[in-house]
Amino acid sequence: MSFYTGRYVSSHGSTHNRVPLSVGEVTLGWHLRESGRTLALAGKTHVLPDAHGMRRLALDGQNDLSTLLKEGWFRLVDRHDGHHGEPDSAYADWLRSKGYASRDPWTDFVIAVDGPDGTPLSGWKMRNARYPARVAEMHSETAYTTDRAIEFLEAQGDDPFVLHLSYVKPHWPYIAPAPYHAMYKPEHCLPVQRHEAERGPGAHPMFRAWQDEEVAQSFQQDVAIETVRPTYQGLIRQVDDHLGRVWATLERLGRWRDTLVIFTADHGDYLGDHWLGEKELFHDCVQRVPMLVYDPTEAADATRGTEDPGWSRRWTWCPPSSMRSASTPRAMWWRGRSLVPALRGSQGEDWRDCAVSELDWTFRGARRRLGYATGQHMAWMVRTDRWKYIHWTGGLRPRFFDLRQDPGEFHDLGEDRTLVGVRDAMRHRLLQWFTRLKSRTTITWAEAEQRTDSHKKAGVFLGEWRRPPGRNPGGRSRPSRPRHCPAPRHAR
Amino acid sequence: MSFYTGRYVSSHGSTHNRVPLSVGEVTLGWHLRESGRTLALAGKTHVLPDAHGMRRLALDGQNDLSTLLKEGWFRLVDRHDGHHGEPDSAYADWLRSKGYASRDPWTDFVIAVDGPDGTPLSGWKMRNARYPARVAEMHSETAYTTDRAIEFLEAQGDDPFVLHLSYVKPHWPYIAPAPYHAMYKPEHCLPVQRHEAERGPGAHPMFRAWQDEEVAQSFQQDVAIETVRPTYQGLIRQVDDHLGRVWATLERLGRWRDTLVIFTADHGDYLGDHWLGEKELFHDCVQRVPMLVYDPTEAADATRGTEDPGWSRRWTWCPPSSMRSASTPRAMWWRGRSLVPALRGSQGEDWRDCAVSELDWTFRGARRRLGYATGQHMAWMVRTDRWKYIHWTGGLRPRFFDLRQDPGEFHDLGEDRTLVGVRDAMRHRLLQWFTRLKSRTTITWAEAEQRTDSHKKAGVFLGEWRRPPGRNPGGRSRPSRPRHCPAPRHAR
Repeated sequence: MSFYTGRYVSSHGSTHNRVPLSVGEVTLGWHLRESGRTLALAGKTHVLPDAHGMRRLALDGQNDLSTLLKEGWFRLVDRHDGHHGEPDSAYADWLRSKGYASRDPWTDFVIAVDGPDGTPLSGWKMRNARYPARVAEMHSETAYTTDRAIEFLEAQGDDPFVLHLSYVKPHWPYIAPAPYHAMYKPEHCLPVQRHEAERGPGAHPMFRAWQDEEVAQSFQQDVAIETVRPTYQGLIRQVDDHLGRVWATLERLGRWRDTLVIFTADHGDYLGDHWLGEKELFHDCVQRVPMLVYDPTEAADATRGTEDPGWSRRWTWCPPSSMRSASTPRAMWWRGRSLVPALRGSQGEDWRDCAVSELDWTFRGARRRLGYATGQHMAWMVRTDRWKYIHWTGGLRPRFFDLRQDPGEFHDLGEDRTLVGVRDAMRHRLLQWFTRLKSRTTITWAEAEQRTDSHKKAGVFLGEWRRPPGRNPGGRSRPSRPRHCPAPRHAR
Repeated sequence: MSFYTGRYVSSHGSTHNRVPLSVGEVTLGWHLRESGRTLALAGKTHVLPDAHGMRRLALDGQNDLSTLLKEGWFRLVDRHDGHHGEPDSAYADWLRSKGYASRDPWTDFVIAVDGPDGTPLSGWKMRNARYPARVAEMHSETAYTTDRAIEFLEAQGDDPFVLHLSYVKPHWPYIAPAPYHAMYKPEHCLPVQRHEAERGPGAHPMFRAWQDEEVAQSFQQDVAIETVRPTYQGLIRQVDDHLGRVWATLERLGRWRDTLVIFTADHGDYLGDHWLGEKELFHDCVQRVPMLVYDPTEAADATRGTEDPGWSRRWTWCPPSSMRSASTPRAMWWRGRSLVPALRGSQGEDWRDCAVSELDWTFRGARRRLGYATGQHMAWMVRTDRWKYIHWTGGLRPRFFDLRQDPGEFHDLGEDRTLVGVRDAMRHRLLQWFTRLKSRTTITWAEAEQRTDSHKKAGVFLGEWRRPPGRNPGGRSRPSRPRHCPAPRHAR
């Protein structure tokens, strides 16, 4: 939702996958539609309808607008989230047409495997990640979504378009079709990053509670790491191969000349790092995401093929980049800035020296186990080149890391008395960030400018004492003090 | 909009009178409608339609829903803002029916006066505040709005209702009808509170720029203070008298037995205090508003007739109070808490020890004069019993007052080196306040609880390694390490 709105979580309010964006929010999808482009989604999206808001505004019918709102203003090429059994999706129908006879072919074939004795086993059990999916690679999620994207690209001719091609994998359930399930061995994978100090008595209570979640406990076994990481690596390779098909399509259609491509992701996966699974606790391993941009213009030759290590912090730049590329005026809603000038060699202003990340931990079992009732449970991370500071609501102490001394983020300095001043400075950065959030979203910058000091234009003449020059409607040129009025007492 | 949403400005986003609340926001009006009450507004409201949002959602037609959205979900008994000429309002028609022949009787009679030689003079000129309005008292705004409210109350019979009775006055244009225009003399009014130190070389640049606004310059003249304050006092007295008519109506209709009454206001007026006019710079004189509550229940006898000096800080309690009174479930949207337990003698938890106030200074001429381009220009005040801290965006230093030593708020300690630690502590309070803002508004507390740790109920079995007890679909009871996999390297 931050990609879609160009704003931070605390500003747009969709604090978690299970929290819809308000129906009143403006998304990238809407902006780009306004710019007259065909706008489509192929694959996965976390857009949830704001059911309360849509009901309140009588937008919960079956019409086009309601459909668009449910999809974040994107037209669907195909939506497939890869999280749930799906008996009734276009992908399920397509699989059945290819011979996968099942009420729910995703559960029974795409994320199921054939065990060593031929028995079908569920992909939900991570122990089965070593086996090949029961679906042929050409019928897997990644292949299917790519097919739909290619069809979409072919149908565009030379028309402008925006395609959000959103792959489900790599992600749990960690099941890859052959040959990707067996392409990598543990020694080809990143080594696990964890330290006994992280489970010691000084560990932060929230971190400890997270380590007790089922996914974390599973990944605390070496065998889980050894089983899942190679498959995860295989799923990455599979996306890489299928993106090759997309690039070939752009080549064939001659669209590299006018297509801006942004490749990124929304999170990594602990896969056992820091004794955790999933993605939420602000470690670099789950926050640093790929960010590759292809800009077709000649001006971008200035930076073509180069790498900018700072870009991993510039997530909120994304929506403004596509906006600017689509020639729409800079929108009032964005908090970020466009990447385009940087792509084209302009250094520009160094406008940000830290990254901020946010977490709503309301929905985690850890919250209940620590005895917190439902409410607002949030955490914020502020990261500079050297320091990572994590602030929790609920009276919990901060977590704090010196990334120069401890790039692995194993040693929490949240209670180190020698670093009080540094933590204060990080807290001050967090306050500064809060004060800069974009909360005013219902008027444009131009409207704000137009409404500045404009009361007289609106017929409101507040505050005038003297009469306009050249007129004398009040009689005397300057009112004398009324006889009965003593001078007011001044407190000076 | 904070009264209407039960949340702070930084959370609901309507940062200024000229910034509409998003169409996606939920207001008191909507909640109370849902509770099945007749809900009405008589008088002034600052609800502006979210024109962009309504257009985006195709809600900008002429139907009932659009009308409700434009009025914050209140049904209008009568809306009259008292800021602009109004040729085409119900009040204008009514005035014409009473013989005020004019295209715009508000401008020509209600806020116009008869000068000493009988010439009509404009009420926009504060120098004319000493003269009586050209409208008879019984036809003034306060009388008219009261008449509409009484008609509404009479029409309710014994039905439950919520009436937002919202008087325009006291407010600029500072014109009162006879006899209220001459009821008070300057010596009956509060003495002006201002100090030469506030104009000294150490004054905060924003404060200085505000002192240069026209309304401030007008009120820097003693004669303006002497002229306007008595009239303002008269306007207060007029409201008091007309509320007496409302109370008599409740008496006559027997509705004191079941009507909760909250009397409050949204701001004061400098009227020359601190060399200023209008209402924005966080001084107590413009922020401390009346707050009187009548609770008809017997339980409230526990506190009847008593005074709680802390209540002036509990603005955000207001909407939850009326909610609770209207028997609706405690809403997910509120940030405040109900006043009802306190009214009924329960001390409860002392959940807040400071008040926070917010300002969007984008729209002030002062912003331009100081050379700031359009953007996000905000300020926040944090006030405890002793200290008042004001934080500005734009790199401006804070303002800071010791209210124990300096209850008049004349001596800005924002740069006092001996108070660095106290200012840091106030800044920390501000950060805490930011972290507690309600940004998640699209789901209820109950839904948040239901969605906690609920992935398996939703068919998402992430993180499982072992198989369920009693079943053996995977063959072996515990997987051995695959032969080709060496142990992963651990960073310990």
